[in-house]
Amino acid sequence: MIIVMRDRASLKEISKVLKEIKNLGFRAHPIKGGEKTIIGIIGNGRTVPPEYFEAFPGVEKVVRILKPFKLASKEFKKEKSLIKINGISIGGKEIIVMAGPCSVESRSQILETAHAVKEAGAKILRGGAFKPRTSPYSFQGLKEKGLELLYEAKQETGLAIITEVMAPEHVKIVGEVADILQIGTRNMQNYALLEAVGKYDKPVLLKRGMMSTVEELLMAAEYILSNGNYRVILCERGIRTFEKYTRNTLDLTAVPLINQLSHLPVCIDPSHGTGKRNLVIPASKAAVAIGADALLVEVHPCPEKALSDGAQSLTFNEFKKLMDEIKSIARAINREI
Amino acid sequence: MIIVMRDRASLKEISKVLKEIKNLGFRAHPIKGGEKTIIGIIGNGRTVPPEYFEAFPGVEKVVRILKPFKLASKEFKKEKSLIKINGISIGGKEIIVMAGPCSVESRSQILETAHAVKEAGAKILRGGAFKPRTSPYSFQGLKEKGLELLYEAKQETGLAIITEVMAPEHVKIVGEVADILQIGTRNMQNYALLEAVGKYDKPVLLKRGMMSTVEELLMAAEYILSNGNYRVILCERGIRTFEKYTRNTLDLTAVPLINQLSHLPVCIDPSHGTGKRNLVIPASKAAVAIGADALLVEVHPCPEKALSDGAQSLTFNEFKKLMDEIKSIARAINREI
Amino acid sequence: MIIVMRDRASLKEISKVLKEIKNLGFRAHPIKGGEKTIIGIIGNGRTVPPEYFEAFPGVEKVVRILKPFKLASKEFKKEKSLIKINGISIGGKEIIVMAGPCSVESRSQILETAHAVKEAGAKILRGGAFKPRTSPYSFQGLKEKGLELLYEAKQETGLAIITEVMAPEHVKIVGEVADILQIGTRNMQNYALLEAVGKYDKPVLLKRGMMSTVEELLMAAEYILSNGNYRVILCERGIRTFEKYTRNTLDLTAVPLINQLSHLPVCIDPSHGTGKRNLVIPASKAAVAIGADALLVEVHPCPEKALSDGAQSLTFNEFKKLMDEIKSIARAINREI
Amino acid sequence: MIIVMRDRASLKEISKVLKEIKNLGFRAHPIKGGEKTIIGIIGNGRTVPPEYFEAFPGVEKVVRILKPFKLASKEFKKEKSLIKINGISIGGKEIIVMAGPCSVESRSQILETAHAVKEAGAKILRGGAFKPRTSPYSFQGLKEKGLELLYEAKQETGLAIITEVMAPEHVKIVGEVADILQIGTRNMQNYALLEAVGKYDKPVLLKRGMMSTVEELLMAAEYILSNGNYRVILCERGIRTFEKYTRNTLDLTAVPLINQLSHLPVCIDPSHGTGKRNLVIPASKAAVAIGADALLVEVHPCPEKALSDGAQSLTFNEFKKLMDEIKSIARAINREI
Repeated sequence: MIIVMRDRASLKEISKVLKEIKNLGFRAHPIKGGEKTIIGIIGNGRTVPPEYFEAFPGVEKVVRILKPFKLASKEFKKEKSLIKINGISIGGKEIIVMAGPCSVESRSQILETAHAVKEAGAKILRGGAFKPRTSPYSFQGLKEKGLELLYEAKQETGLAIITEVMAPEHVKIVGEVADILQIGTRNMQNYALLEAVGKYDKPVLLKRGMMSTVEELLMAAEYILSNGNYRVILCERGIRTFEKYTRNTLDLTAVPLINQLSHLPVCIDPSHGTGKRNLVIPASKAAVAIGADALLVEVHPCPEKALSDGAQSLTFNEFKKLMDEIKSIARAINREI
Repeated sequence: MIIVMRDRASLKEISKVLKEIKNLGFRAHPIKGGEKTIIGIIGNGRTVPPEYFEAFPGVEKVVRILKPFKLASKEFKKEKSLIKINGISIGGKEIIVMAGPCSVESRSQILETAHAVKEAGAKILRGGAFKPRTSPYSFQGLKEKGLELLYEAKQETGLAIITEVMAPEHVKIVGEVADILQIGTRNMQNYALLEAVGKYDKPVLLKRGMMSTVEELLMAAEYILSNGNYRVILCERGIRTFEKYTRNTLDLTAVPLINQLSHLPVCIDPSHGTGKRNLVIPASKAAVAIGADALLVEVHPCPEKALSDGAQSLTFNEFKKLMDEIKSIARAINREI
Repeated sequence: MIIVMRDRASLKEISKVLKEIKNLGFRAHPIKGGEKTIIGIIGNGRTVPPEYFEAFPGVEKVVRILKPFKLASKEFKKEKSLIKINGISIGGKEIIVMAGPCSVESRSQILETAHAVKEAGAKILRGGAFKPRTSPYSFQGLKEKGLELLYEAKQETGLAIITEVMAPEHVKIVGEVADILQIGTRNMQNYALLEAVGKYDKPVLLKRGMMSTVEELLMAAEYILSNGNYRVILCERGIRTFEKYTRNTLDLTAVPLINQLSHLPVCIDPSHGTGKRNLVIPASKAAVAIGADALLVEVHPCPEKALSDGAQSLTFNEFKKLMDEIKSIARAINREI
Repeated sequence: MIIVMRDRASLKEISKVLKEIKNLGFRAHPIKGGEKTIIGIIGNGRTVPPEYFEAFPGVEKVVRILKPFKLASKEFKKEKSLIKINGISIGGKEIIVMAGPCSVESRSQILETAHAVKEAGAKILRGGAFKPRTSPYSFQGLKEKGLELLYEAKQETGLAIITEVMAPEHVKIVGEVADILQIGTRNMQNYALLEAVGKYDKPVLLKRGMMSTVEELLMAAEYILSNGNYRVILCERGIRTFEKYTRNTLDLTAVPLINQLSHLPVCIDPSHGTGKRNLVIPASKAAVAIGADALLVEVHPCPEKALSDGAQSLTFNEFKKLMDEIKSIARAINREI
């Protein structure tokens, strides 16, 4: 950590900072420049929160040098983590496609979709039972009934299940059906929920907050890892920007960036990432080309009847086309789907 | 609601939309322009989610005409809501100042601060017992012990208490001490939590998500109101932008904007809104001038020893200065502090 | 265009709007809903600026239905435009790679780079002679001398040249050397410059403003097209967001989006788009997979000696690797490099 | 400047950096921490562009310590600069209000407005003759004819004139009429234009780019100052964010922030900053309370007939009300209007 003192910082202010660094058990390296004094802090792995020294008189700013995440970092574990679920692995040579409707709406809808996406090559079925909605007046999901239908779809097709959990008290009930617990974008910093899934023994797909930096995503993963659950998949699903034609701006370069910072596998959600059905296939091809380990795609038997996210859901035929197109890209980069 | 059809939408696609509108019990008003057909939907107060028709073939976009919030709207209630707490009112002629440390750290810290801010004119004591922190390795608050200390401060000074609640299962324990339950910026769309405080009988201060629109803030309030709790105070605390000198960009014009859209009182948090101690007083003066009903200010007996947010906390003397300066502004606009 | 009247708009306010629509020669379609009146305007291809009616009393908002760009639109010209330059074409089956240093720095630097990128398969040499720099104290380019060196590189290698023009009075001098005139991100809405290149007979590569929507990019292109120059290539080079690890957020889905809205070819600049050398190759692969017609890549014989943008420039070896990797992707989608 | 080396940087990489620092004539201060080596560079006032070392192998990042602006900085000149124009001063105790229409549209419009705003207390008349417009099909201003009308208004009322200049070749012709040259938000980084006004002997009002940081605004001012023109007024006019209810988000805290960083006076444009007529008065009151030295307000005799920006223009009566309300605030903070 580097402390930058103001131009006119007094000797007294500087020595107060130096003394405090020593008190905390760190070593201080002051450097006196022509205009400013800066102070390096050395802690042999220990750190102080950067804001700690910002409040000292005479301090202009504090610059963090070490990354704040540890268990999620490449330094902690060099090779990519392989998350095993129901006989498949996320993070290996194979790119895993998870597909299904935004919400579970009925028995026929989810079963029909499960069969269709399985046939096209998906390995995991997605479907929301508990739904976070901006409006209290929108459809909130079938809840327990939705979980039962997902269970039935799993029994029938053998597909693994991913579904969202929205509150700590639901972790157990959702976990009985889900093979992967999904944390939604609005809950990425719901720390009570992160702790609850961190203490539960199921893989977690953690969606990046639509307003969160990659570093904050890794810090949220750190909450889960530090509670004992190491099976975390990160998911980029579009961030909020000033652009209005698309629902979100899909930050595809987050994939190689995370691959350089962390050992955790990365999934792309091209459906929320674009919000427009006719952008989902191109975005999926780019996701595979840039190195994603998994895709999460919304598919619905009849998008115009969907109770949520119809505009970004693919039909069965469109999904088959998606699978065909991404397989060519996967081969070109020596991966499999 | 207006449905805009694509340029080349077929007659079949148009009549499919018209038929569905009728099926749902609405009236349809098609308008055929030179290049496009648009369709108005009339529902006498009832609405369809705008995404419903977006998935229909031939539909280019759907434009919402009515605002999605109801109970929070000015149309529902014309006059400003007056939230009564412990003998004071938020939303009236008096501007209420809430002040105190970011976190409750010790008995002496919170009691000393309580006395100091009371003397300077604050009416409500703030202090975090449960703390949401980006890093799992940062200080997470004194939790139950912190609540006890807040209770003691209330007994000693008579100040009302505002403190944050982070999980549905904590609402009851926090509610026993707090006069106002605070929902933090990261939890603005934690719907399980919004429902829990919506069913609890205490006023709620709802902080705007750091990357949420004013409309989303009002929709989050709608969750609380529609669960039966009408005592909601909205709080603007800075939004995330590209600017790097300040921690956030304080959206002060949100105050008159909300005053035109809603009857709920509005609070400004100049401490998080700027993140820099020497911007807190100017921002507070502007907040009063622009029509805020309350301020939420971080004050600490010794900011350089604060376990969180020291860089944006005022000393007791600075807080006195703040109160003096905003009183002049309040008088100039015919309000009181 | 749709005019939405306020809830309490008076009959007088409504009829004033209706009268004005008629005066302007349009037809008005009022729709009276339960709570609001909305008015559709039909103009048979003619439009009013949307802000025109926003100032009328009783008007809540005006919703534009038609897209504001015409000559740049897919409606104007269905098939992709093919821009021919020096024997090559941008917008066809072949993906064109433009490569070279950020700035022309010396004779040996630009000649050496020209030979290296040509050998690796680039078809166009990039290099800045006039450089826009945030600081007046940074290297501003070799200017005329830089143009001479680019001319020499063209003579020696046969590569076409792309270089930036920053002011209307430089269009002629730059145009004598350049095969493509580049408009930089900071000048996307420099209308005097857009008009000048619109009147000049050379292809233009128009970079998206780092703060501009896709619609604004197309409107800027419209300035060039409407001045008579139809040879415009659009370039996505990263937009400004809250993310801090990367210099910009590369909006790759802008490629298929623009392909749906416009007939103009699209180029991706993965160097500025990421700002980090080790993200340039993955971003380039994704750019090809998502449908880009061209790439613009920074290459430098010795990035650590570059006078600008060294951190995002590839070495000759890295560029060869880039070309190899994108060729596989191009084959997989049935295109060529 | 601080260079942070990667965790696994080799001794060779570190010594290459140290050697280069020495070659450039600076002193290097390496600090070896437990995990990383960081290197401080001391230059006695001289600097290297931060990107210079970023391209060196083994370098993780480079952290700038000194601010990049010099002539615009508080360190260069402690007291606020007083810009004298036509007998009035911007930057002193008096807050100067500039008002008038977005565009000069006709003789009667500009003369009528000039008289009305003068009577209400404005000291400077604004009005656009050359207009930057997003669409090439929108009204582009009366150009030279507009300048003549502004000149006539000045002769009649004695008000000083502020009007926009969009291209270097127009500086002279605009400067013959204008007392203040306005640089618009889209041209903040049009360096050819900044240099041209920097060499011209008239005060300049420099508008912040709608997506530029405060630091970039100060760097743009630095271009003007370093070309010899010291009479620069900075203007905050709203920045682009994700919020959709307002046209822009007015960054009012930029005022005290700039006051701490620079000696240049600061103006607020509440009209573009909000885009909504009924937010202009509250925003102006906050602007005065937070310390602005000037306001730039759009006023039109008949906003619903305005050729541009009608929705954010005040009527004469509304402007009178604005002046009355901000006078009370000014008195409360011991300033004058």
